[in-house]
Amino acid sequence: MTGRQAAPGLFISLEGIDGAGKSSHIASLERLFAQAGRAVVRSREPGGTPLAESLRALVLNEPMDPLTESLLVFAARRDHVVQVIRPALARGDVLLCDRFTDATFAYQGAGRGFDLDVLATLERWVQQPDGAGGAALLQPDLTLWFDLAPEIAAERLAGARLPDRFEAQPADFFRRVRAGYAARAAAEPGRFARIDAAASREAVGAAVEAAIRERGWLA
Amino acid sequence: MTGRQAAPGLFISLEGIDGAGKSSHIASLERLFAQAGRAVVRSREPGGTPLAESLRALVLNEPMDPLTESLLVFAARRDHVVQVIRPALARGDVLLCDRFTDATFAYQGAGRGFDLDVLATLERWVQQPDGAGGAALLQPDLTLWFDLAPEIAAERLAGARLPDRFEAQPADFFRRVRAGYAARAAAEPGRFARIDAAASREAVGAAVEAAIRERGWLA
Repeated sequence: MTGRQAAPGLFISLEGIDGAGKSSHIASLERLFAQAGRAVVRSREPGGTPLAESLRALVLNEPMDPLTESLLVFAARRDHVVQVIRPALARGDVLLCDRFTDATFAYQGAGRGFDLDVLATLERWVQQPDGAGGAALLQPDLTLWFDLAPEIAAERLAGARLPDRFEAQPADFFRRVRAGYAARAAAEPGRFARIDAAASREAVGAAVEAAIRERGWLA
Repeated sequence: MTGRQAAPGLFISLEGIDGAGKSSHIASLERLFAQAGRAVVRSREPGGTPLAESLRALVLNEPMDPLTESLLVFAARRDHVVQVIRPALARGDVLLCDRFTDATFAYQGAGRGFDLDVLATLERWVQQPDGAGGAALLQPDLTLWFDLAPEIAAERLAGARLPDRFEAQPADFFRRVRAGYAARAAAEPGRFARIDAAASREAVGAAVEAAIRERGWLA
């Protein structure tokens, strides 16, 4: 399915606009897989390595043009893929990642209106086949998309913390980001599971667990 | 000539392996142009802006794979082009830059053997026409290539300072870098002036000044 048959690991990304609540469900997912006897690695993007975390701090806080931003995001991703993601999958671990490339298409592409062909070329370079049996691009085995109306997300975030360069964007930006996620989900329906993040925390947790169980990954 | 006819500025890059002595001739060039009444901006790559200098520190000191390195170098370049180079040229200034894209083709391309097509694509994105009358990629009006045998460069550098991640490479790396510069010079003979950096400091200085004068830029 993923072209990464040689890697017995499991790559699960969590996506969605800020305030959708995905972060709080990563811990439950980790417990779920640990109870099933799997080794779990939690990570995030941009970030996940010392170099990529340095780049994250620059991307979230320094003003820069959209091409500079996209090059930095993919440089951080390349380091993360090489240092953390591929080794974890080769070991057979479950890798839970708070955001991956879909976020770049949603934020830089749909949100900022940056050239999608440039992003697709960068994705191809950075996630190229690993030469160890895989013939297709590295992609998550499952992407949990925490979908939420930007108005509700903004209410939840209000006063919670100081906004970074992205969180400070106007509501219209987040409407475009949401549409960007919807477009990626429509293009790869088998990889995406849409989670209704407007539901109660318990209902969201149950939906997340169901998406994992129905793929037979907790057997 | 350069497709940047709308910009009356002058973009001069200085290239060559470490130890070739280019840095010491930038100051003389600055004096020369200042005496001719030109405003001069001195810069360097990777670097030249606060963001790009942060990236320079990472590239020179942190281990990373060649694609990560190339993406970071071009991200730094993009910020430099947008924040410093294009504004300086639009004002009509003389921009003297210690290294530019030829160094990436020489170090990452020829030196490390990284994919030249990827570098050419990044060059095209980062140096794209500015939409203000220019129809071709942004390139230096003149590239002064301080050419020197790696053995002589190594002698000059010995004991001078602690080597960074590039300076610590073996002699064979610098032979490939030199060949990379030679290939770029052969492809664009009108833009390149080869300076014999094995000559005395005075002779090198005279050759640099001659390259400027014969283009009529000090009239």
